[in-house]
Amino acid sequence: MARWKLTLEYHGGAFVGWQRQANGVSVQEVLEDAIFAFAGERATTHAAGRTDSGVHALAQVAHFDLAKASDADTVRDAINFHLKEHRVKVLAAEAVDGNFHARFSAIQRAYLYRILDRRPAPAIEAGRVWWVPRPLDVERMAAAAAELPGKRDFSTFRAANCQADSPIKTLDVLTVTRVGAEIHVRARARSFLYHQVRNMVGSLKLVGEGKWPLAEFVRARDAADRTHGGPTAPPEGLYLVEVIY
Amino acid sequence: MARWKLTLEYHGGAFVGWQRQANGVSVQEVLEDAIFAFAGERATTHAAGRTDSGVHALAQVAHFDLAKASDADTVRDAINFHLKEHRVKVLAAEAVDGNFHARFSAIQRAYLYRILDRRPAPAIEAGRVWWVPRPLDVERMAAAAAELPGKRDFSTFRAANCQADSPIKTLDVLTVTRVGAEIHVRARARSFLYHQVRNMVGSLKLVGEGKWPLAEFVRARDAADRTHGGPTAPPEGLYLVEVIY
Repeated sequence: MARWKLTLEYHGGAFVGWQRQANGVSVQEVLEDAIFAFAGERATTHAAGRTDSGVHALAQVAHFDLAKASDADTVRDAINFHLKEHRVKVLAAEAVDGNFHARFSAIQRAYLYRILDRRPAPAIEAGRVWWVPRPLDVERMAAAAAELPGKRDFSTFRAANCQADSPIKTLDVLTVTRVGAEIHVRARARSFLYHQVRNMVGSLKLVGEGKWPLAEFVRARDAADRTHGGPTAPPEGLYLVEVIY
Repeated sequence: MARWKLTLEYHGGAFVGWQRQANGVSVQEVLEDAIFAFAGERATTHAAGRTDSGVHALAQVAHFDLAKASDADTVRDAINFHLKEHRVKVLAAEAVDGNFHARFSAIQRAYLYRILDRRPAPAIEAGRVWWVPRPLDVERMAAAAAELPGKRDFSTFRAANCQADSPIKTLDVLTVTRVGAEIHVRARARSFLYHQVRNMVGSLKLVGEGKWPLAEFVRARDAADRTHGGPTAPPEGLYLVEVIY
């Protein structure tokens, strides 16, 4: 039995999310079907982050165990062959130690959230950005973002159905920058609460629109209560960009 | 009667190309329908470049004449309202002099060609890049590209059904650079022959694969004969990025 680590790219709009579900096609399902088609084994895959429907991955990481002997290039190419019809691809396969766990061994996860901040809707980037037609003040958003890193209670940005044991997390990085017509929010942490990045972005947008002064944003953060937070930003702007082990 | 200049973004995969055709939906058709829905006038639109099916535009330029009095923001927003279901958007509208012509007044056009040069197929960028799974030598491609700018007979890179009066064109810029897993070919000229950019890219790929040494590329160029050129690169990697007046 060998343990394999996969790095995956996928278009979130094509799936109900990472996790296997009865109501639609998941990344996990098509990936496990492709592994079965290649190896004849019903493997269970475990991902670093269980992304929601619509959330994209540039480099999701998953692992699984396989009895069939193989090499890394064959594992990558054979799974990709059986993924041909699907918007998920294996970027890399690597044989890893049996103690490696895609979710529990990760020491940092990085997300990018893309806002398209311009009056016309996206023609090319539809489904891949959050379209915000009104101009946002990026400097204000960046100043607010700077108030979040550190170890604290992130309950204000925690989805009601979050299964984490504690709302205390350490946020390593949160930056807001303008890139042409887009605004990029980048977040790094060992782990995030459920919907934490999308909820932080939703509150930052209120600051960017001028609906919230900075002090209001800080009050919301310190309330440690989801009802004080802004709305949840939509999934299509979110990208899992890196998982560090 | 006022003349309007529009800057347009569109996803080429959604259309049979710029030009109105019987066999499918064109950018021109949905744009003229949107103008009619807004203004009640059957305007004819003229584009800087008649892009083929699959070819994208980040900033195509088109013009048309309208009797209805309006302002630039209204023209942009009203046309976009009626384009809601289509993957084409008006980025900007501008009232211009009656002598302005989107095609004939242009003094330079810029194209970007995106090659995804990696073994796994694109999951997210499908339909937006030319996927080339074998590694290309970018330095060799860049050296070959440097042999093309200038005023010369571009017949080697001219499609059989090209309607230009002459195969003599002046190519201002042709560069090849690596951007992560992508290779970007950028071209600038007052005007191009039909399929010229895609044919140049197809020949550059032969150099990048090592199938053509540089001398062979130069011989093909000097033959001034399409049968000596490489294959035509597919449309989905091509973007019209700028038109200068």
